[in-house]
Amino acid sequence: MIAVLKNGTSDKQIESLKNWIESLGLQVHLSKGEYQTIVGLVGDTSRVDEDLLVSLDIVETVKRISEPFKSANRKFHPDNTVVSVGDTSVGGNIFAVMAGPCSVESEEQVIEIAKAVKAAGATMLRGGAFKPRTSPYDFQGLKAEGIEILLKAKEETGLPIVTEIMNAEHLPLFEKVDVIQVGARNMQNFELLKELGKTQKPILLKRGLSATIKEWLMSAEYIMAGGNENIILCERGIRSYDAQYTRNVLDLSAVPVLHELTHLPVIVDPSHATGSAKLVKPMSLAAAACGADGLMIEVHNNPKAALCDGPQSLTPEQFADVMQSAKAIAKNANNC
Amino acid sequence: MIAVLKNGTSDKQIESLKNWIESLGLQVHLSKGEYQTIVGLVGDTSRVDEDLLVSLDIVETVKRISEPFKSANRKFHPDNTVVSVGDTSVGGNIFAVMAGPCSVESEEQVIEIAKAVKAAGATMLRGGAFKPRTSPYDFQGLKAEGIEILLKAKEETGLPIVTEIMNAEHLPLFEKVDVIQVGARNMQNFELLKELGKTQKPILLKRGLSATIKEWLMSAEYIMAGGNENIILCERGIRSYDAQYTRNVLDLSAVPVLHELTHLPVIVDPSHATGSAKLVKPMSLAAAACGADGLMIEVHNNPKAALCDGPQSLTPEQFADVMQSAKAIAKNANNC
Amino acid sequence: MIAVLKNGTSDKQIESLKNWIESLGLQVHLSKGEYQTIVGLVGDTSRVDEDLLVSLDIVETVKRISEPFKSANRKFHPDNTVVSVGDTSVGGNIFAVMAGPCSVESEEQVIEIAKAVKAAGATMLRGGAFKPRTSPYDFQGLKAEGIEILLKAKEETGLPIVTEIMNAEHLPLFEKVDVIQVGARNMQNFELLKELGKTQKPILLKRGLSATIKEWLMSAEYIMAGGNENIILCERGIRSYDAQYTRNVLDLSAVPVLHELTHLPVIVDPSHATGSAKLVKPMSLAAAACGADGLMIEVHNNPKAALCDGPQSLTPEQFADVMQSAKAIAKNANNC
Amino acid sequence: MIAVLKNGTSDKQIESLKNWIESLGLQVHLSKGEYQTIVGLVGDTSRVDEDLLVSLDIVETVKRISEPFKSANRKFHPDNTVVSVGDTSVGGNIFAVMAGPCSVESEEQVIEIAKAVKAAGATMLRGGAFKPRTSPYDFQGLKAEGIEILLKAKEETGLPIVTEIMNAEHLPLFEKVDVIQVGARNMQNFELLKELGKTQKPILLKRGLSATIKEWLMSAEYIMAGGNENIILCERGIRSYDAQYTRNVLDLSAVPVLHELTHLPVIVDPSHATGSAKLVKPMSLAAAACGADGLMIEVHNNPKAALCDGPQSLTPEQFADVMQSAKAIAKNANNC
Repeated sequence: MIAVLKNGTSDKQIESLKNWIESLGLQVHLSKGEYQTIVGLVGDTSRVDEDLLVSLDIVETVKRISEPFKSANRKFHPDNTVVSVGDTSVGGNIFAVMAGPCSVESEEQVIEIAKAVKAAGATMLRGGAFKPRTSPYDFQGLKAEGIEILLKAKEETGLPIVTEIMNAEHLPLFEKVDVIQVGARNMQNFELLKELGKTQKPILLKRGLSATIKEWLMSAEYIMAGGNENIILCERGIRSYDAQYTRNVLDLSAVPVLHELTHLPVIVDPSHATGSAKLVKPMSLAAAACGADGLMIEVHNNPKAALCDGPQSLTPEQFADVMQSAKAIAKNANNC
Repeated sequence: MIAVLKNGTSDKQIESLKNWIESLGLQVHLSKGEYQTIVGLVGDTSRVDEDLLVSLDIVETVKRISEPFKSANRKFHPDNTVVSVGDTSVGGNIFAVMAGPCSVESEEQVIEIAKAVKAAGATMLRGGAFKPRTSPYDFQGLKAEGIEILLKAKEETGLPIVTEIMNAEHLPLFEKVDVIQVGARNMQNFELLKELGKTQKPILLKRGLSATIKEWLMSAEYIMAGGNENIILCERGIRSYDAQYTRNVLDLSAVPVLHELTHLPVIVDPSHATGSAKLVKPMSLAAAACGADGLMIEVHNNPKAALCDGPQSLTPEQFADVMQSAKAIAKNANNC
Repeated sequence: MIAVLKNGTSDKQIESLKNWIESLGLQVHLSKGEYQTIVGLVGDTSRVDEDLLVSLDIVETVKRISEPFKSANRKFHPDNTVVSVGDTSVGGNIFAVMAGPCSVESEEQVIEIAKAVKAAGATMLRGGAFKPRTSPYDFQGLKAEGIEILLKAKEETGLPIVTEIMNAEHLPLFEKVDVIQVGARNMQNFELLKELGKTQKPILLKRGLSATIKEWLMSAEYIMAGGNENIILCERGIRSYDAQYTRNVLDLSAVPVLHELTHLPVIVDPSHATGSAKLVKPMSLAAAACGADGLMIEVHNNPKAALCDGPQSLTPEQFADVMQSAKAIAKNANNC
Repeated sequence: MIAVLKNGTSDKQIESLKNWIESLGLQVHLSKGEYQTIVGLVGDTSRVDEDLLVSLDIVETVKRISEPFKSANRKFHPDNTVVSVGDTSVGGNIFAVMAGPCSVESEEQVIEIAKAVKAAGATMLRGGAFKPRTSPYDFQGLKAEGIEILLKAKEETGLPIVTEIMNAEHLPLFEKVDVIQVGARNMQNFELLKELGKTQKPILLKRGLSATIKEWLMSAEYIMAGGNENIILCERGIRSYDAQYTRNVLDLSAVPVLHELTHLPVIVDPSHATGSAKLVKPMSLAAAACGADGLMIEVHNNPKAALCDGPQSLTPEQFADVMQSAKAIAKNANNC
């Protein structure tokens, strides 16, 4: 349920309304936009007297929201959320590009790649320290040591770092990490989401292997219900019946659909979606054209020797070429 | 199996090679490109003595092709196929846009829309005369009368026309139709494909509801095996587990995948893929950005009153806006 | 819309009601069950005055049916449809089993298999004369000659025959065929369905590769709307994301779902669904246990040498073993 | 890689072989069957000299195994694994049936249901204490209190209890729980699987929403790699494009496929798969017919008032009817 307040409502009046709603056992979600202030009532709103609410002097209109996602709902919060990350951000005017290796392999490797992607225009460095692998016998990442290496690369280049968490108990290791990634396989690991909701870290929430858009937003809602609204959604391809030429099907229409449903920023990972380096450029351009707020791209200094996902990694030169074209299209798309 | 011929091979030598291959019970597929001539051997090539072939004076190299599609295979035919349609074409330098109503409803309606889409830059007029409907009780199209109306609109505006066939017996009615469409539900109606292979009409072959890319190319192959190589592929969304916000999932990565596998042009239909007018623009731009050779878009002068698929139809004004942006991106994408 | 008539309504009264409804431009669908007579009104029932209808002396109740399938709907026709095929039937007390080779290869082959499957208890002989193949270069069946061979096997063994049609123009060749099969790829070939609706032949309608249950029933409705109600539905597996160990996923819950929605009989084809001979027995037993009215099973005298789908064909010995177990379970399941 | 040992090999010889293999950095997996002893070599077997191994006196044959699952592989361990649970078991001659409410609601409710399902022949009691819900605003279970209630029901009836874990930190609460369930959404929560691998508790591993069979076995492998081989696999339906009449598609062919690939027992949950109480009986019978080792069924004393998943819960009377029929079929199926 949302109440749109009249222009000119004072902060004191808002505070008093908030107190009253909270006394009914509901949470209040306040969104002060440039043109209007919206009060979201989250919880069991069946106990709210709608007539009473609409009759208040300061209330312009009241609407019941049928979508089960509340905090993530654009109706509660019409303005885009801009997630600040160090000196940069996701969801604002910057086209955010997170680039780097699938796995952190060595300090030398990561720093070389970090410098290259920064030079090409990346806004953040990504790299896997904890790696969720289908097989227990595959390389599971450098873990804590991998995070140390990423932090050195951050120090060296100034790029904020993005890396994946698989276990809430590891949170202390992520203290200096700028963006914590939740991978596709953990999108509905609700216990992990709840713990991340207690932090104020930006969370990159990847779409589950066969998650619906609604389920994905409900997972964002788990984090937001805990008080952390710094969420970046990342489309990374969904499972389909045809996996001969691409690992997954990149669902690009999710980008404009999400922009209508939610105020959270949406980026696209063409590397994991397609599993093929030569498809990264066309799909990056397509993502930029349909309004994505950024990209996540795998870059490796020697794709053939990568410990993980080599066939989908770009060389730094290929990455620089993608960056240039994608930025031009993103600019164009935002002007249309 | 393909044989790449040496530069400077004379037509007489090629003719003589062709005769020899045909004497082995195989079909010959000849592709003379700017830089090289390629001879495709189609059929049971196990009986061909590869050593003998490679030892011929005029043969540079011989390769066995493992893909089951031969005529559609880019390895047989490295240059893009450009399908000529009246004064325009698909697959060349023109960004082809087929626009018009889902169903032909009346002469007035079609001519009004045809003029509007022409003014906005469409290169062809689309409209359904025979309509494949899930229910036998739904409107099945104006049939022969619908084709007459499209032909009048063609006369009036000069736009070539595209319309769907559902039964090979109706072919005489399609004599003046410029492009014959095969719908998703008939993609594996092999008897119809065989009949279309006997004509020289451009065929717009839509992807089946859950066809793999390989099955789709094999259906093109059915038409090509009959001698008709004028085929335009059209991605129109595939079936997925999530149909809440879009009717299908538009598989845009199919565009660059197909461009690598085949020489046939590929266009995209964002209207049927998404089922939602407001998603047509972002997905048109994305299609242009990832290299599509054109678009097929539903346009109606009064979407709310359309007999079929109103919610996904653009008004002429909305279409004009999409055209402008998509063309700019297409130009940009081709330059990258 | 259906009207349930009072007990004791005379034939003359029913005839008069029928005439009135038809005068409103609607079709009438009459179902006289043991305990009640149901009149189905098919077409645009918005023009029917429901109050007037319910006020008639002979009418007990009137219900609007929201499902788009009318003739196939169990609400219109509460009793099971039993499709008669020669001396046997599908949908009644007999557990119908159609067995035979994927492709008709020779008279000798078919007669040998026919005798073997008859001895093991099969109620019909199946065999492909026209073969829908993904590739135009694959064996397309013996066509007319194949049907001749099947008819000879019928003469020899007395087993009714089931074979697939791909083109309505071939109908004259099917005059003596007992059951005409529509394959998965033609489930939405509406022009073919309409032609089959004009015959009175039993039609075996296979589920499309990724057809929903509703779409499948609407395709049955296309045939029934033409006046042919002799339809047998055949579940043959649906497309899924996992095709490593089975070609498709056999959707057995479709059997009880269909038994609730429709009065038409439902059989199961475990051979095409799984693509693996060793899975045919367990899935046959499961089909029998959940209430299927019968099975369609591929049997070949020499699976390793089969021209088509050898890996999924049973030997006659294996088939005899499946028959014995499946019949025992079917009997058990019907007693539960 | 596996080595099949000759009959009559002494324990001392085996021990010495084991030591040698471990000295190469590999793990050894020993399976002593009635007729043969198999030694599995797990890890990077490329360093093993196959010729040397086969030349040993005690070794009969050596095979390299290409499947990525080793401990779960039937080739390593030809005999069925029987998982003991209190006085009962899963995977042996008993048809295991776990029944009870979706959510634990109160002591009274659980004890009433436990008595009823025991009387009807259930071998274990299931009930959710920690509930993974799509929405953070939905009932999340009674948690620790729910486990206490289940333990009281166990005390009262003697039925072993099965309940779901969502967080490895909760393990101390599961000390007296007989079988720990891992839900579909956590099937690839590798950190949780690793922790469960350190216990010796029987683990019920549900298939993920769209997990392939191979991915599912690899998740079992995560637990087994830690040393816990007490795993029960549970098919609970997979995501498909058609969710109108059933929530998921129950993939029953997974049962015989798994029985070939692995020695672990496989049960089926028709309640979650279909989401519909009236489909539970036919799908339970089908599961029994195709060889499932048991069932997991939701039973509630008052389905209409259930806090969770009421529409798919059986009443105790309906459950008793299913039990009787399913057991008869299971017996029959095992005799075939």
